[in-house]
Amino acid sequence: MALLAEHLLKPLPADKQIETGPFLDAVAHLPPFFDCFGSPVFTPIKADISGNIKTIRAVYDKNPTKFRTLQNILEVEKEMYGPEWPKVGATLALMWLKRGLRFVQVLLQSICDGERDESRPNLIRVNVTKAYEMALKKYHGWLVQKIFQGALYAAPYKSDFLKALSKGQDVPEDQCLEKVRLFLVNFTATIDIIYEMYTKMNAELNYKV
Amino acid sequence: MALLAEHLLKPLPADKQIETGPFLDAVAHLPPFFDCFGSPVFTPIKADISGNIKTIRAVYDKNPTKFRTLQNILEVEKEMYGPEWPKVGATLALMWLKRGLRFVQVLLQSICDGERDESRPNLIRVNVTKAYEMALKKYHGWLVQKIFQGALYAAPYKSDFLKALSKGQDVPEDQCLEKVRLFLVNFTATIDIIYEMYTKMNAELNYKV
Ligand SMILES: CCCCCCCCCCCCC/C=C/[C@@H](O)[C@H](CO[C@@H]1O[C@H](CO)[C@H](O)[C@H](OS(=O)(=O)O)[C@H]1O)NC(=O)CCCCCCCCCCC
Ligand SMILES: CCCCCCCCCCCCC/C=C/[C@@H](O)[C@H](CO[C@@H]1O[C@H](CO)[C@H](O)[C@H](OS(=O)(=O)O)[C@H]1O)NC(=O)CCCCCCCCCCC
Repeated sequence: MALLAEHLLKPLPADKQIETGPFLDAVAHLPPFFDCFGSPVFTPIKADISGNIKTIRAVYDKNPTKFRTLQNILEVEKEMYGPEWPKVGATLALMWLKRGLRFVQVLLQSICDGERDESRPNLIRVNVTKAYEMALKKYHGWLVQKIFQGALYAAPYKSDFLKALSKGQDVPEDQCLEKVRLFLVNFTATIDIIYEMYTKMNAELNYKV
Repeated sequence: MALLAEHLLKPLPADKQIETGPFLDAVAHLPPFFDCFGSPVFTPIKADISGNIKTIRAVYDKNPTKFRTLQNILEVEKEMYGPEWPKVGATLALMWLKRGLRFVQVLLQSICDGERDESRPNLIRVNVTKAYEMALKKYHGWLVQKIFQGALYAAPYKSDFLKALSKGQDVPEDQCLEKVRLFLVNFTATIDIIYEMYTKMNAELNYKV
Protein backbone atom coordinates (compact mmCIF):
# COMPACT_ATOMS: atom_id res chain seq x y z
CA MET A 1 0.00 0.00 0.00
CA ALA A 2 2.96 1.87 0.89
CA LEU A 3 3.66 3.91 -2.16
CA LEU A 4 0.68 6.22 -2.04
CA ALA A 5 -0.23 6.34 1.62
CA GLU A 6 3.40 6.68 2.67
CA HIS A 7 3.67 9.94 0.82
CA LEU A 8 0.62 11.88 1.83
CA LEU A 9 0.64 15.55 0.98
CA LYS A 10 0.58 17.93 3.92
CA PRO A 11 -2.81 19.27 5.00
CA LEU A 12 -3.36 22.84 3.84
CA PRO A 13 -2.64 25.50 6.44
CA ALA A 14 -5.23 28.15 7.31
CA ASP A 15 -3.73 30.66 4.83
CA LYS A 16 -3.96 27.98 2.10
CA GLN A 17 -0.38 28.59 1.04
CA ILE A 18 1.40 25.54 -0.38
CA GLU A 19 5.07 25.23 0.51
CA THR A 20 7.11 24.49 -2.60
CA GLY A 21 9.67 22.12 -1.05
CA PRO A 22 7.32 19.62 0.61
CA PHE A 23 4.97 19.80 -2.39
CA LEU A 24 7.77 18.81 -4.79
CA ASP A 25 8.95 16.04 -2.47
CA ALA A 26 5.46 14.56 -2.34
CA VAL A 27 4.62 14.67 -6.06
CA ALA A 28 8.05 13.31 -7.01
CA HIS A 29 6.71 9.91 -5.93
CA LEU A 30 4.08 9.85 -8.66
CA PRO A 31 6.05 9.50 -11.95
CA PRO A 32 7.60 6.11 -10.99
CA PHE A 33 4.07 4.66 -10.99
CA PHE A 34 4.04 4.80 -14.75
CA ASP A 35 6.87 2.24 -14.84
CA CYS A 36 4.60 -0.34 -13.22
CA PHE A 37 2.44 -0.51 -16.30
CA GLY A 38 5.08 -2.17 -18.43
CA SER A 39 4.40 -0.36 -21.68
CA PRO A 40 6.67 2.10 -23.52
CA VAL A 41 3.55 4.17 -24.11
CA PHE A 42 3.87 5.65 -20.63
CA THR A 43 7.52 6.66 -20.98
CA PRO A 44 6.77 10.06 -22.60
CA ILE A 45 4.05 10.79 -20.05
CA LYS A 46 6.37 10.00 -17.18
CA ALA A 47 9.07 12.11 -18.83
CA ASP A 48 6.74 15.08 -19.24
CA ILE A 49 5.59 15.09 -15.62
CA SER A 50 9.12 14.48 -14.32
CA GLY A 51 10.29 17.35 -16.52
CA ASN A 52 7.76 19.70 -14.93
CA ILE A 53 8.86 18.74 -11.44
CA LYS A 54 12.51 19.22 -12.43
CA THR A 55 11.83 22.66 -13.88
CA ILE A 56 10.05 23.83 -10.73
CA ARG A 57 12.70 22.29 -8.48
CA ALA A 58 15.48 24.10 -10.38
CA VAL A 59 13.76 27.46 -9.85
CA TYR A 60 13.08 26.69 -6.19
CA ASP A 61 16.65 25.58 -5.50
CA LYS A 62 17.99 28.91 -6.76
CA ASN A 63 16.37 30.68 -3.84
CA PRO A 64 14.26 28.58 -1.45
CA THR A 65 13.33 31.64 0.59
CA LYS A 66 12.10 33.72 -2.32
CA PHE A 67 10.20 30.77 -3.80
CA ARG A 68 8.99 29.36 -0.47
CA THR A 69 5.38 28.89 -1.62
CA LEU A 70 3.85 28.16 -5.02
CA GLN A 71 2.15 31.54 -4.82
CA ASN A 72 5.58 33.16 -4.42
CA ILE A 73 6.76 31.48 -7.61
CA LEU A 74 3.93 32.96 -9.64
CA GLU A 75 4.34 36.42 -8.14
CA VAL A 76 8.11 36.58 -8.48
CA GLU A 77 8.11 35.20 -12.02
CA LYS A 78 5.32 37.54 -13.10
CA GLU A 79 7.46 40.45 -11.96
CA MET A 80 10.61 38.92 -13.43
CA TYR A 81 9.43 37.98 -16.91
CA GLY A 82 6.98 40.73 -17.80
CA PRO A 83 4.96 40.09 -20.98
CA GLU A 84 6.49 36.63 -21.54
CA TRP A 85 4.74 35.44 -18.38
CA PRO A 86 2.85 33.11 -17.78
CA LYS A 87 4.14 30.94 -20.65
CA VAL A 88 7.55 30.64 -19.06
CA GLY A 89 9.59 29.22 -16.19
CA ALA A 90 8.14 27.35 -13.24
CA THR A 91 4.79 29.05 -13.85
CA LEU A 92 4.45 27.14 -17.14
CA ALA A 93 5.75 23.91 -15.65
CA LEU A 94 3.26 24.07 -12.77
CA MET A 95 0.43 24.95 -15.17
CA TRP A 96 1.00 21.62 -16.96
CA LEU A 97 1.93 19.67 -13.86
CA LYS A 98 -1.38 20.53 -12.20
CA ARG A 99 -3.19 19.06 -15.22
CA GLY A 100 -1.24 15.81 -14.92
CA LEU A 101 -2.01 15.76 -11.18
CA ARG A 102 -5.68 16.46 -11.84
CA PHE A 103 -5.66 13.55 -14.29
CA VAL A 104 -4.29 11.24 -11.59
CA GLN A 105 -6.71 12.58 -9.00
CA VAL A 106 -9.84 12.16 -11.12
CA LEU A 107 -8.69 8.69 -12.17
CA LEU A 108 -8.18 7.53 -8.58
CA GLN A 109 -11.39 9.19 -7.39
CA SER A 110 -13.42 7.59 -10.14
CA ILE A 111 -12.06 4.14 -9.28
CA CYS A 112 -12.74 4.73 -5.56
CA ASP A 113 -16.27 5.79 -6.42
CA GLY A 114 -16.81 2.47 -8.13
CA GLU A 115 -17.45 3.93 -11.56
CA ARG A 116 -16.99 1.12 -14.04
CA ASP A 117 -17.95 -0.57 -17.24
CA GLU A 118 -20.27 -3.30 -15.97
CA SER A 119 -19.54 -5.54 -18.93
CA ARG A 120 -15.76 -5.30 -18.36
CA PRO A 121 -15.39 -4.49 -14.67
CA ASN A 122 -11.64 -5.16 -14.56
CA LEU A 123 -10.84 -2.47 -17.15
CA ILE A 124 -10.19 1.14 -16.16
CA ARG A 125 -10.79 2.69 -19.57
CA VAL A 126 -13.93 4.51 -18.44
CA ASN A 127 -12.04 5.98 -15.50
CA VAL A 128 -9.01 6.95 -17.62
CA THR A 129 -11.28 8.53 -20.23
CA LYS A 130 -13.16 10.53 -17.61
CA ALA A 131 -9.87 11.76 -16.12
CA TYR A 132 -8.57 12.69 -19.57
CA GLU A 133 -11.72 14.62 -20.45
CA MET A 134 -11.70 16.56 -17.20
CA ALA A 135 -7.98 17.33 -17.04
CA LEU A 136 -6.34 17.34 -20.44
CA LYS A 137 -8.47 16.89 -23.53
CA LYS A 138 -9.15 20.56 -24.17
CA TYR A 139 -5.42 21.31 -24.18
CA HIS A 140 -4.68 18.69 -26.82
CA GLY A 141 -5.11 19.09 -30.57
CA TRP A 142 -6.91 16.41 -32.56
CA LEU A 143 -3.75 14.42 -33.20
CA VAL A 144 -2.70 14.04 -29.56
CA GLN A 145 -6.33 13.23 -28.72
CA LYS A 146 -6.24 10.49 -31.32
CA ILE A 147 -2.98 9.13 -29.92
CA PHE A 148 -4.53 9.16 -26.46
CA GLN A 149 -7.33 6.97 -27.76
CA GLY A 150 -4.74 4.50 -28.99
CA ALA A 151 -2.75 4.69 -25.76
CA LEU A 152 -5.90 3.84 -23.81
CA TYR A 153 -5.43 0.23 -24.87
CA ALA A 154 -2.19 0.13 -22.88
CA ALA A 155 -4.01 1.00 -19.67
CA PRO A 156 -3.46 -1.74 -17.08
CA TYR A 157 -6.20 -3.94 -15.65
CA LYS A 158 -7.76 -2.55 -12.50
CA SER A 159 -6.40 -5.44 -10.42
CA ASP A 160 -2.86 -4.83 -11.70
CA PHE A 161 -3.24 -1.11 -11.22
CA LEU A 162 -4.29 -1.50 -7.59
CA LYS A 163 -1.50 -3.99 -7.05
CA ALA A 164 0.98 -1.42 -8.39
CA LEU A 165 -0.42 1.14 -5.97
CA SER A 166 0.22 -1.40 -3.23
CA LYS A 167 3.88 -1.83 -4.18
CA GLY A 168 3.18 -5.18 -5.74
CA GLN A 169 1.68 -6.71 -2.59
CA ASP A 170 -1.57 -8.57 -2.89
CA VAL A 171 -3.76 -6.44 -0.65
CA PRO A 172 -7.55 -6.90 -0.68
CA GLU A 173 -9.12 -4.38 -3.04
CA ASP A 174 -11.26 -2.58 -0.47
CA GLN A 175 -8.26 -2.13 1.82
CA CYS A 176 -6.26 -0.64 -1.02
CA LEU A 177 -9.09 1.71 -2.01
CA GLU A 178 -9.34 2.85 1.61
CA LYS A 179 -5.73 4.03 1.48
CA VAL A 180 -6.28 5.70 -1.85
CA ARG A 181 -9.22 7.62 -0.38
CA LEU A 182 -6.99 8.74 2.45
CA PHE A 183 -4.35 9.89 -0.03
CA LEU A 184 -6.95 11.76 -2.06
CA VAL A 185 -8.00 14.06 0.79
CA ASN A 186 -4.99 16.39 0.88
CA PHE A 187 -4.04 15.65 -2.72
CA THR A 188 -7.38 16.92 -4.04
CA ALA A 189 -7.40 19.93 -1.72
CA THR A 190 -3.91 20.88 -2.86
CA ILE A 191 -4.73 20.61 -6.56
CA ASP A 192 -7.92 22.62 -6.09
CA ILE A 193 -5.93 25.43 -4.49
CA ILE A 194 -3.38 25.45 -7.30
CA TYR A 195 -6.16 25.73 -9.88
CA GLU A 196 -7.74 28.53 -7.89
CA MET A 197 -4.42 30.34 -7.75
CA TYR A 198 -3.96 30.15 -11.52
CA THR A 199 -7.42 31.60 -12.04
CA LYS A 200 -6.97 34.39 -9.50
CA MET A 201 -3.54 35.32 -10.83
CA ASN A 202 -4.82 35.16 -14.41
CA ALA A 203 -2.04 32.70 -15.15
CA GLU A 204 -4.05 30.01 -16.93
CA LEU A 205 -3.47 29.52 -20.68
CA ASN A 206 -5.67 27.60 -23.08
CA TYR A 207 -3.34 26.86 -25.98
CA LYS A 208 -3.38 23.34 -27.42
CA VAL A 209 -0.42 21.08 -28.12
CA MET B 1 21.83 23.31 -46.11
CA ALA B 2 24.25 23.50 -43.42
CA LEU B 3 22.88 21.20 -40.81
CA LEU B 4 23.29 17.92 -42.63
CA ALA B 5 26.17 18.54 -45.00
CA GLU B 6 28.19 20.33 -42.32
CA HIS B 7 28.24 17.21 -40.24
CA LEU B 8 29.21 14.47 -42.62
CA LEU B 9 30.25 11.22 -41.07
CA LYS B 10 33.83 10.15 -41.67
CA PRO B 11 34.51 7.79 -44.56
CA LEU B 12 35.09 4.23 -43.39
CA PRO B 13 38.73 3.22 -43.08
CA ALA B 14 40.03 0.09 -44.78
CA ASP B 15 39.53 -2.03 -41.66
CA LYS B 16 35.92 -0.83 -41.47
CA GLN B 17 36.24 0.06 -37.81
CA ILE B 18 34.06 2.97 -36.66
CA GLU B 19 35.62 5.24 -34.07
CA THR B 20 33.21 5.84 -31.22
CA GLY B 21 34.03 9.49 -30.50
CA PRO B 22 33.63 10.96 -34.00
CA PHE B 23 30.58 8.74 -34.59
CA LEU B 24 28.83 10.11 -31.50
CA ASP B 25 29.77 13.70 -32.40
CA ALA B 26 28.26 13.28 -35.87
CA VAL B 27 24.99 11.61 -34.88
CA ALA B 28 24.42 14.07 -32.02
CA HIS B 29 23.35 16.54 -34.71
CA LEU B 30 20.34 14.47 -35.72
CA PRO B 31 17.94 14.67 -32.73
CA PRO B 32 17.53 18.48 -32.93
CA PHE B 33 15.92 18.00 -36.35
CA PHE B 34 12.82 16.66 -34.68
CA ASP B 35 12.28 20.07 -33.08
CA CYS B 36 11.80 21.62 -36.51
CA PHE B 37 8.57 19.75 -37.02
CA GLY B 38 6.70 21.70 -34.39
CA SER B 39 4.64 18.87 -32.95
CA PRO B 40 4.87 17.37 -29.46
CA VAL B 41 4.54 13.99 -31.16
CA PHE B 42 8.24 14.04 -31.95
CA THR B 43 9.39 14.83 -28.42
CA PRO B 44 9.45 11.18 -27.26
CA ILE B 45 11.24 10.08 -30.42
CA LYS B 46 13.88 12.74 -29.99
CA ALA B 47 14.21 11.78 -26.32
CA ASP B 48 14.66 8.11 -27.15
CA ILE B 49 17.40 8.70 -29.71
CA SER B 50 19.14 11.29 -27.52
CA GLY B 51 18.96 8.81 -24.65
CA ASN B 52 20.74 6.16 -26.73
CA ILE B 53 23.51 8.59 -27.65
CA LYS B 54 23.87 9.62 -24.01
CA THR B 55 24.11 6.01 -22.85
CA ILE B 56 26.83 5.20 -25.36
CA ARG B 57 28.68 8.44 -24.61
CA ALA B 58 28.67 7.67 -20.88
CA VAL B 59 30.27 4.26 -21.49
CA TYR B 60 32.80 5.72 -23.93
CA ASP B 61 33.79 8.55 -21.58
CA LYS B 62 34.65 6.06 -18.85
CA ASN B 63 37.53 4.76 -20.94
CA PRO B 64 37.99 6.23 -24.43
CA THR B 65 40.91 3.93 -25.15
CA LYS B 66 39.13 0.72 -24.24
CA PHE B 67 35.99 1.77 -26.11
CA ARG B 68 37.79 3.42 -29.05
CA THR B 69 35.66 1.70 -31.70
CA LEU B 70 32.06 0.50 -31.72
CA GLN B 71 33.39 -3.02 -32.17
CA ASN B 72 35.40 -2.59 -28.95
CA ILE B 73 32.22 -1.66 -27.10
CA LEU B 74 30.47 -4.86 -28.10
CA GLU B 75 33.50 -7.02 -27.35
CA VAL B 76 34.28 -5.47 -23.97
CA GLU B 77 30.65 -5.46 -22.85
CA LYS B 78 30.13 -9.06 -23.95
CA GLU B 79 33.02 -10.07 -21.75
CA MET B 80 31.91 -7.78 -18.94
CA TYR B 81 28.22 -8.66 -18.70
CA GLY B 82 28.16 -12.37 -19.51
CA PRO B 83 24.65 -13.82 -19.98
CA GLU B 84 22.94 -10.43 -19.54
CA TRP B 85 24.54 -9.28 -22.78
CA PRO B 86 23.47 -8.06 -25.36
CA LYS B 87 20.34 -6.59 -23.70
CA VAL B 88 22.43 -4.22 -21.64
CA GLY B 89 24.70 -1.18 -21.64
CA ALA B 90 25.91 0.61 -24.75
CA THR B 91 25.32 -2.57 -26.76
CA LEU B 92 21.57 -2.21 -26.20
CA ALA B 93 21.61 1.53 -26.79
CA LEU B 94 23.45 1.14 -30.10
CA MET B 95 21.12 -1.69 -31.12
CA TRP B 96 18.19 0.73 -30.91
CA LEU B 97 20.11 3.76 -32.13
CA LYS B 98 21.05 2.00 -35.37
CA ARG B 99 17.33 1.39 -36.01
CA GLY B 100 16.55 5.07 -35.57
CA LEU B 101 19.47 5.94 -37.87
CA ARG B 102 18.29 3.40 -40.42
CA PHE B 103 14.86 5.02 -40.26
CA VAL B 104 16.37 8.44 -41.02
CA GLN B 105 18.56 7.00 -43.78
CA VAL B 106 15.76 5.18 -45.61
CA LEU B 107 13.52 8.24 -45.28
CA LEU B 108 16.12 10.57 -46.81
CA GLN B 109 17.07 8.05 -49.49
CA SER B 110 13.47 7.53 -50.49
CA ILE B 111 12.91 11.27 -50.82
CA CYS B 112 16.11 11.65 -52.84
CA ASP B 113 15.00 8.81 -55.11
CA GLY B 114 11.84 10.75 -55.87
CA GLU B 115 9.48 8.16 -54.41
CA ARG B 116 6.18 9.90 -53.81
CA ASP B 117 2.44 9.79 -53.74
CA GLU B 118 1.61 11.33 -57.11
CA SER B 119 -1.76 12.58 -55.91
CA ARG B 120 -0.17 14.37 -52.91
CA PRO B 121 3.41 15.05 -53.98
CA ASN B 122 4.15 17.42 -51.08
CA LEU B 123 3.46 14.78 -48.43
CA ILE B 124 6.19 12.44 -47.17
CA ARG B 125 3.91 9.80 -45.69
CA VAL B 126 4.90 7.16 -48.24
CA ASN B 127 8.56 7.81 -47.48
CA VAL B 128 8.04 7.79 -43.71
CA THR B 129 6.01 4.58 -43.96
CA LYS B 130 8.68 2.87 -46.04
CA ALA B 131 11.36 3.91 -43.55
CA TYR B 132 9.24 2.67 -40.65
CA GLU B 133 8.61 -0.70 -42.28
CA MET B 134 12.26 -1.24 -43.09
CA ALA B 135 13.73 -0.05 -39.80
CA LEU B 136 11.32 -0.34 -36.91
CA LYS B 137 7.96 -1.98 -37.48
CA LYS B 138 8.99 -5.52 -36.60
CA TYR B 139 10.32 -4.36 -33.23
CA HIS B 140 7.04 -2.70 -32.29
CA GLY B 141 3.99 -4.43 -30.87
CA TRP B 142 0.56 -3.72 -32.34
CA LEU B 143 -0.10 -0.78 -30.04
CA VAL B 144 3.05 1.19 -30.88
CA GLN B 145 2.42 0.40 -34.56
CA LYS B 146 -1.05 1.85 -34.20
CA ILE B 147 0.33 4.96 -32.52
CA PHE B 148 2.85 5.30 -35.33
CA GLN B 149 -0.03 5.35 -37.81
CA GLY B 150 -1.56 8.22 -35.88
CA ALA B 151 1.76 10.04 -35.56
CA LEU B 152 2.17 9.85 -39.32
CA TYR B 153 -0.31 12.70 -39.60
CA ALA B 154 2.14 14.95 -37.80
CA ALA B 155 4.80 14.40 -40.48
CA PRO B 156 5.78 17.74 -42.02
CA TYR B 157 5.23 18.67 -45.66
CA LYS B 158 8.13 17.79 -47.92
CA SER B 159 8.86 21.45 -48.59
CA ASP B 160 9.00 22.24 -44.86
CA PHE B 161 11.08 19.17 -44.21
CA LEU B 162 13.66 20.13 -46.82
CA LYS B 163 13.67 23.67 -45.50
CA ALA B 164 14.40 22.33 -42.02
CA LEU B 165 17.29 20.31 -43.44
CA SER B 166 18.56 23.58 -44.91
CA LYS B 167 18.51 25.35 -41.56
CA GLY B 168 15.43 27.30 -42.52
CA GLN B 169 16.96 28.84 -45.63
CA ASP B 170 14.96 28.72 -48.83
CA VAL B 171 17.27 26.64 -50.99
CA PRO B 172 16.04 25.22 -54.31
CA GLU B 173 14.85 21.66 -53.79
CA ASP B 174 17.31 19.98 -56.16
CA GLN B 175 20.23 21.74 -54.51
CA CYS B 176 19.07 20.57 -51.12
CA LEU B 177 18.63 17.00 -52.30
CA GLU B 178 22.14 17.08 -53.74
CA LYS B 179 23.54 17.79 -50.28
CA VAL B 180 21.37 15.10 -48.76
CA ARG B 181 22.76 12.60 -51.26
CA LEU B 182 26.26 13.63 -50.27
CA PHE B 183 25.40 13.16 -46.61
CA LEU B 184 23.92 9.74 -47.29
CA VAL B 185 27.14 8.26 -48.69
CA ASN B 186 29.10 7.81 -45.47
CA PHE B 187 25.97 7.73 -43.34
CA THR B 188 24.60 4.68 -45.14
CA ALA B 189 27.96 2.94 -45.23
CA THR B 190 28.37 3.46 -41.48
CA ILE B 191 24.92 2.11 -40.64
CA ASP B 192 25.45 -0.91 -42.88
CA ILE B 193 28.65 -1.75 -41.03
CA ILE B 194 26.96 -1.43 -37.65
CA TYR B 195 24.20 -3.81 -38.75
CA GLU B 196 26.80 -6.24 -40.07
CA MET B 197 28.65 -6.09 -36.77
CA TYR B 198 25.50 -6.92 -34.78
CA THR B 199 24.86 -9.92 -37.00
CA LYS B 200 28.43 -11.19 -36.86
CA MET B 201 28.65 -10.72 -33.09
CA ASN B 202 25.25 -12.35 -32.64
CA ALA B 203 24.17 -9.22 -30.77
CA GLU B 204 20.88 -8.54 -32.52
CA LEU B 205 17.66 -9.06 -30.53
CA ASN B 206 14.16 -9.29 -31.94
CA TYR B 207 11.99 -8.50 -28.94
CA LYS B 208 9.09 -6.09 -29.45
CA VAL B 209 8.20 -3.04 -27.37
C1 LIG C 1 7.48 5.05 -33.74
C2 LIG C 1 6.18 5.57 -33.26
C3 LIG C 1 6.34 6.91 -32.70
C4 LIG C 1 5.07 7.55 -32.29
C5 LIG C 1 5.32 8.60 -31.28
C6 LIG C 1 4.08 9.28 -30.87
C7 LIG C 1 4.24 9.98 -29.57
C8 LIG C 1 3.08 10.82 -29.17
C9 LIG C 1 3.34 11.54 -27.89
C10 LIG C 1 2.20 12.35 -27.38
C11 LIG C 1 2.56 13.34 -26.29
C12 LIG C 1 2.88 12.74 -24.94
C13 LIG C 1 2.36 13.56 -23.78
C14 LIG C 1 3.02 14.92 -23.65
C15 LIG C 1 2.40 16.04 -24.07
C16 LIG C 1 3.00 17.41 -23.89
O1 LIG C 1 3.24 17.99 -25.14
C17 LIG C 1 2.03 18.29 -23.11
C18 LIG C 1 2.59 19.71 -23.03
O2 LIG C 1 3.83 19.69 -22.36
C19 LIG C 1 4.27 20.92 -21.83
O3 LIG C 1 4.62 21.79 -22.91
C20 LIG C 1 5.12 23.05 -22.44
C21 LIG C 1 5.38 23.93 -23.65
O4 LIG C 1 4.18 24.15 -24.34
C22 LIG C 1 6.38 22.86 -21.62
O5 LIG C 1 7.39 22.28 -22.42
C23 LIG C 1 6.09 21.94 -20.45
O6 LIG C 1 7.28 21.58 -19.79
S1 LIG C 1 8.11 22.61 -18.90
O7 LIG C 1 8.47 21.87 -17.66
O8 LIG C 1 9.30 22.93 -19.66
O9 LIG C 1 7.31 23.77 -18.62
C24 LIG C 1 5.46 20.64 -20.94
O10 LIG C 1 5.04 19.88 -19.83
N1 LIG C 1 1.89 17.76 -21.78
C25 LIG C 1 0.75 17.16 -21.37
O11 LIG C 1 -0.23 17.07 -22.07
C26 LIG C 1 0.72 16.58 -19.95
C27 LIG C 1 0.51 15.09 -20.07
C28 LIG C 1 0.16 14.45 -18.75
C29 LIG C 1 -0.28 13.03 -19.00
C30 LIG C 1 -1.16 12.50 -17.91
C31 LIG C 1 -1.45 11.05 -18.06
C32 LIG C 1 -2.15 10.61 -19.33
C33 LIG C 1 -2.28 9.11 -19.31
C34 LIG C 1 -2.88 8.51 -20.54
C35 LIG C 1 -2.94 7.03 -20.37
C36 LIG C 1 -3.57 6.31 -21.50
C1 LIG D 1 -2.08 12.07 -23.37
C2 LIG D 1 -1.78 11.19 -24.51
C3 LIG D 1 -0.63 10.35 -24.20
C4 LIG D 1 -0.31 9.37 -25.23
C5 LIG D 1 1.10 8.93 -25.13
C6 LIG D 1 1.44 7.92 -26.16
C7 LIG D 1 2.91 7.81 -26.35
C8 LIG D 1 3.34 6.71 -27.26
C9 LIG D 1 4.83 6.64 -27.36
C10 LIG D 1 5.35 5.60 -28.30
C11 LIG D 1 6.82 5.30 -28.17
C12 LIG D 1 7.76 6.37 -28.65
C13 LIG D 1 8.98 5.81 -29.34
C14 LIG D 1 9.91 5.06 -28.41
C15 LIG D 1 9.93 3.70 -28.40
C16 LIG D 1 10.89 2.95 -27.53
O1 LIG D 1 10.17 2.18 -26.58
C17 LIG D 1 11.71 2.01 -28.40
C18 LIG D 1 12.62 1.12 -27.52
O2 LIG D 1 13.47 1.95 -26.79
C19 LIG D 1 14.64 1.32 -26.26
O3 LIG D 1 14.23 0.45 -25.21
C20 LIG D 1 15.35 -0.21 -24.58
C21 LIG D 1 14.83 -1.19 -23.56
O4 LIG D 1 14.04 -2.15 -24.20
C22 LIG D 1 16.28 0.80 -23.95
O5 LIG D 1 15.59 1.50 -22.93
C23 LIG D 1 16.74 1.80 -25.01
O6 LIG D 1 17.44 2.87 -24.42
S1 LIG D 1 18.90 2.71 -23.79
O7 LIG D 1 19.68 3.88 -24.26
O8 LIG D 1 18.71 2.77 -22.36
O9 LIG D 1 19.49 1.47 -24.22
C24 LIG D 1 15.55 2.41 -25.73
O10 LIG D 1 16.01 3.20 -26.82
N1 LIG D 1 12.54 2.79 -29.29
C25 LIG D 1 12.29 2.89 -30.62
O11 LIG D 1 11.41 2.26 -31.15
C26 LIG D 1 13.21 3.79 -31.44
C27 LIG D 1 12.34 4.87 -32.04
C28 LIG D 1 13.04 5.64 -33.11
C29 LIG D 1 12.04 6.50 -33.82
C30 LIG D 1 12.47 6.87 -35.20
C31 LIG D 1 11.59 7.86 -35.85
C32 LIG D 1 10.12 7.49 -36.03
C33 LIG D 1 9.40 8.67 -36.61
C34 LIG D 1 7.92 8.51 -36.77
C35 LIG D 1 7.36 9.74 -37.38
C36 LIG D 1 5.91 9.66 -37.61
